[in-house]
Amino acid sequence: MSPASSSKCNARSLASRSVWHRPATGLALTAASWFAIGQPAFAEVSAEVAHVFNTFSFLICGALVMFMAAGFAMLEAGLVRSKNVATILLKNIALYSLAGILFYLVGYALMYPADAWIGGIEVLGFMKGGAPYNPGDLSAPDLATGYSASSDWFFQMVFVATAASVVSGTIAERTKLWSFMIFVVVLTGIIYPIQGSWTWGKGWLADMGFSDFAGSTIVHSVGGWAALVGALMVGPRLGKFSGRKINALPGHSMPLATLGTFILWLGWFGFNGGSQLALGSGANATAMSVVFVNTNMAAAAGVVAAMITAQLWFGKVDLTMALNGALAGLVSITAGPDVSTPLLAMIIGGIGGALCVASVIVVERLRIDDVVGAISVHLVCGIWGTLAVGIFNPSVALHVQAIGIVAIGAFVSAASWVTWTAINAIVGLRVSPEEETSGLDEAEIGLQAYPEFGKNSF
Amino acid sequence: MSPASSSKCNARSLASRSVWHRPATGLALTAASWFAIGQPAFAEVSAEVAHVFNTFSFLICGALVMFMAAGFAMLEAGLVRSKNVATILLKNIALYSLAGILFYLVGYALMYPADAWIGGIEVLGFMKGGAPYNPGDLSAPDLATGYSASSDWFFQMVFVATAASVVSGTIAERTKLWSFMIFVVVLTGIIYPIQGSWTWGKGWLADMGFSDFAGSTIVHSVGGWAALVGALMVGPRLGKFSGRKINALPGHSMPLATLGTFILWLGWFGFNGGSQLALGSGANATAMSVVFVNTNMAAAAGVVAAMITAQLWFGKVDLTMALNGALAGLVSITAGPDVSTPLLAMIIGGIGGALCVASVIVVERLRIDDVVGAISVHLVCGIWGTLAVGIFNPSVALHVQAIGIVAIGAFVSAASWVTWTAINAIVGLRVSPEEETSGLDEAEIGLQAYPEFGKNSF
Amino acid sequence: MSPASSSKCNARSLASRSVWHRPATGLALTAASWFAIGQPAFAEVSAEVAHVFNTFSFLICGALVMFMAAGFAMLEAGLVRSKNVATILLKNIALYSLAGILFYLVGYALMYPADAWIGGIEVLGFMKGGAPYNPGDLSAPDLATGYSASSDWFFQMVFVATAASVVSGTIAERTKLWSFMIFVVVLTGIIYPIQGSWTWGKGWLADMGFSDFAGSTIVHSVGGWAALVGALMVGPRLGKFSGRKINALPGHSMPLATLGTFILWLGWFGFNGGSQLALGSGANATAMSVVFVNTNMAAAAGVVAAMITAQLWFGKVDLTMALNGALAGLVSITAGPDVSTPLLAMIIGGIGGALCVASVIVVERLRIDDVVGAISVHLVCGIWGTLAVGIFNPSVALHVQAIGIVAIGAFVSAASWVTWTAINAIVGLRVSPEEETSGLDEAEIGLQAYPEFGKNSF
Repeated sequence: MSPASSSKCNARSLASRSVWHRPATGLALTAASWFAIGQPAFAEVSAEVAHVFNTFSFLICGALVMFMAAGFAMLEAGLVRSKNVATILLKNIALYSLAGILFYLVGYALMYPADAWIGGIEVLGFMKGGAPYNPGDLSAPDLATGYSASSDWFFQMVFVATAASVVSGTIAERTKLWSFMIFVVVLTGIIYPIQGSWTWGKGWLADMGFSDFAGSTIVHSVGGWAALVGALMVGPRLGKFSGRKINALPGHSMPLATLGTFILWLGWFGFNGGSQLALGSGANATAMSVVFVNTNMAAAAGVVAAMITAQLWFGKVDLTMALNGALAGLVSITAGPDVSTPLLAMIIGGIGGALCVASVIVVERLRIDDVVGAISVHLVCGIWGTLAVGIFNPSVALHVQAIGIVAIGAFVSAASWVTWTAINAIVGLRVSPEEETSGLDEAEIGLQAYPEFGKNSF
Repeated sequence: MSPASSSKCNARSLASRSVWHRPATGLALTAASWFAIGQPAFAEVSAEVAHVFNTFSFLICGALVMFMAAGFAMLEAGLVRSKNVATILLKNIALYSLAGILFYLVGYALMYPADAWIGGIEVLGFMKGGAPYNPGDLSAPDLATGYSASSDWFFQMVFVATAASVVSGTIAERTKLWSFMIFVVVLTGIIYPIQGSWTWGKGWLADMGFSDFAGSTIVHSVGGWAALVGALMVGPRLGKFSGRKINALPGHSMPLATLGTFILWLGWFGFNGGSQLALGSGANATAMSVVFVNTNMAAAAGVVAAMITAQLWFGKVDLTMALNGALAGLVSITAGPDVSTPLLAMIIGGIGGALCVASVIVVERLRIDDVVGAISVHLVCGIWGTLAVGIFNPSVALHVQAIGIVAIGAFVSAASWVTWTAINAIVGLRVSPEEETSGLDEAEIGLQAYPEFGKNSF
Repeated sequence: MSPASSSKCNARSLASRSVWHRPATGLALTAASWFAIGQPAFAEVSAEVAHVFNTFSFLICGALVMFMAAGFAMLEAGLVRSKNVATILLKNIALYSLAGILFYLVGYALMYPADAWIGGIEVLGFMKGGAPYNPGDLSAPDLATGYSASSDWFFQMVFVATAASVVSGTIAERTKLWSFMIFVVVLTGIIYPIQGSWTWGKGWLADMGFSDFAGSTIVHSVGGWAALVGALMVGPRLGKFSGRKINALPGHSMPLATLGTFILWLGWFGFNGGSQLALGSGANATAMSVVFVNTNMAAAAGVVAAMITAQLWFGKVDLTMALNGALAGLVSITAGPDVSTPLLAMIIGGIGGALCVASVIVVERLRIDDVVGAISVHLVCGIWGTLAVGIFNPSVALHVQAIGIVAIGAFVSAASWVTWTAINAIVGLRVSPEEETSGLDEAEIGLQAYPEFGKNSF
């Protein structure tokens, strides 16, 4: 089975898939020959074996991406103050749960309109009288696509949750729990799927040749734009900015933040590796290997670049900068881990790591209060990574990359603004100053994260 | 290779396996068509390739379930007070270790009497004179079963450890270390395997048609019954109940509890997904995908249902309720993740989440002190999930499900009572009031979990 | 495809590979028959399917080993005092990053000289004028070796990082950040690859028949020797030894240490299981299963043996001893998880666990300050495990095992001594006594791990 014969696979990442059929022209700095398998020297994988490989790859890689929800939870918990820890933990497990439910009920159908599997219809059929909804004979699409539809759904679902995870960290420590939950519903059910359909759902950006292998723009910058708009609307935390002074409100636990970063790094192998969308041939397995290596090298270079930048800039290495450097490298390579050599991956990731340090400073000077640095990591590096594909890969037009970035940014920002505004008008976005001072854990969930230690007992 | 040709696979989950050959009758609310692949349209997987798939699935899924031991350790550590943290951590790593050793020496042979691989005999042969025990030519059973015997043993072993993990949390903070260890030996070497053989070892419950895909009853309720009997015998912690008043003794670290829950959620993909017991065909890969999706959706619905229930009941969302809601959803779907649509999985998991909140309240009012809520999560939802298969799946008789629940509950309760009583008589179950007040870490292991912070330094 | 047909696989673990062709002579205590598949009864895996299996195994097992970096980070963070936590976390994420970059630029080419994929050349080509370096048509080696070259590189790279991880814990709490980083560069770029080439790069130790399946000596003892020399050169922490008195400087968080141990245990399935280096046949899948089981049983026995030893020796069970017992069991079985029965694995791991407890005492009495016990775990048990293969497996000569241990130990110790001495002369190894007293977090990175709690605020 050729991976290119599967319809959704094609839809999902046209550019990356077509790479197998692209002649090996001299790509500056990219490794044409890595992919120039041209005529595969062996083709001895039966359709059913390929089906099992493709499906198992979706499941295992999807499970790794699911675990990124734990990574975000730990990272964000580590970077807030102890009085807000329980709330941020609750937001993270709740957003992962809601993202799955909403993507099932609404989002998947919006994002992949050609697909027959629509959760909303199942619900509708159930409500109409309890008659069992028949989701269709899934053996047929399986044969055609080369993978189980459920496994593909699972893999796409965990991506939605990732986009939502980006938001919670930026606006932590002052946003109401249920208001945030409502935003997650809209983001994962409507905003993310609509823009996702433009590229991965065979939409107009795919037609133009926009290339975003695993979602530097489609996943990470989407979360980043939503977070940026949210941060602007909800405003900075009390005490963050006093006059011209910027005050550090340091996170309460570096081990949690570090653990979260390592979990995210691990999960990213599933995030990028699984985005090959196929494992059922030697060519696909080789391509997935290249993706693993490039993903790792970009992150490694991001750490080192952020450490050196911080050492030169501040005279000391900052752990949180190193952690954000890793994530910056990972976001930066996400648009093109398939069309890169390890060296290029290190360059792209290293630039991402340095850029992230600079961006954290700039964002603060702009009086935007991003608790965990998610705007710098996911939005700024998401843009950089998407542009990098256009810069280093001659077969992808830089201006098309820019169009995709701007179009998605404009749509997500506008839709987020409307959503946040509506939520603000109806239930309010922000807790009261008293609640913020005493901590969201007391105000929102009546439970302390650490009842036995810390300076913020209540 | 047809998965149905493997003997233990059949034994392990007759109901789920036979689903492939079951005609697609109109199952109310279940998705007959998900499984109505009828005549597989392709059958191009050689016996050896299927063997590799099946074996690798056992290993990877088993590794995920092994990691659940870390999840239980973190969850339980987070939910006890800091003076008992080191002890609960030690109990968790020790119980996982003992469970493996006992299942090797005794348990596996009891649970799968037809199987030739008996660790005890290896030991016996060694003791009789150092002659090397020959466990038989494992290539032969491999050919017949379609998977490596070692991989199957590994996967079954991690399940035993899960059952034992359930117990430690409930009776934490007052039970002696070595007394608990003795109970683990009996539970994993004798009690669990005997009841497990009734269904998964081709016993009388399997003959009756009792259906428990991955162990809502056989694993989770078994741990739950043992925990319940233990809680009744060891009694509540000092200060938990004073007169009619119920005092909260809040856990010391919400990040640990949340991390543990996420790890358990991740591990559950292995727990339920691997319980398909085969990956060597398109039909099996598709079935495993369905299991992954339903497992996730049940957990997600459990979180949301528990949050809403808590909000309505208490006026605030409680993080620990949300965490237990996730686990409740997971336990609830474990009996039938293979015979469910995502919508039904959400209904089953959501009911589990709400039920768990109610059960936590009821258990407390019954003056039973369950430190982590394991009775509500694993016993109550284990029963609910097993009944749900009988309710929603017409091919499984509800009364047979009830018989299985009652029979296993009666046996495990009685055997646990005998075991706890014997341990109590010989070495005692409970530490002294002074030791309990100062904390088990000081009394039992002479080491502080956090020597630098916390209010319980010694 | 026969697994024996791949060249690097053969090089990597000659002994284990040839086991498939070894006649089943009566090995004392080892299970010849486990491996005496002799003439595989089926051989129906096409070259391309085997390629996918082998590659995917490298990627998934490699990702598990990558996660061991998080395990080491958590273990070491838990075992240092809170004033040094952020620094040890930074060291861990930085060493993992540097290890990958150095192994890419230099190490891999040194370790596998026959291999064409040399990162340094890519850099050179890039520097010479931006012309894209062509790493060669990787489809060709893929066909010959049976796996993607990138996947193999990824798997080998995470092993280097493991060796480096061993060092950071021993010399924690007093070593300068950048000095340690320089050592990591030399260790991962030069020292590790040179000695690694002797066995896994088809060098003279491989020719002699030295057998070290996954690296008890080649990975763990290498880290251990480097750590030992480092500990001798940097000296003990202030306050560790006062006159004849040995003072406990207890680690600040047992949950972190326990979490780290569980993560390492999980990762070890990838470490040892992936070291089968092939999954593309029933025989390989079965062999990998045996490795998983033996790895688990050795760790389990290590825990129980360490607990019993501690109970008998100190009168109390020590959690940190149980944790180190698990790791000791894992290191001990790493040289021969393929040529062992579960019972033998328990014996080897149990001896390792007891040995580790004794070694921790002895190392302290020798006035060597090993913060986390890494010398006992990785060096002592690494030696024990390597010898055990020679003791229990008649086809491996004990004196050859001893030669390998001594040769690698001598080389790594000498090279480490030269490196540490040069670093000491140029930038210094140790922070000032004032900095050590106030903590490395303040001195080196200006950031507190726990700004809100702990007794070491600054």
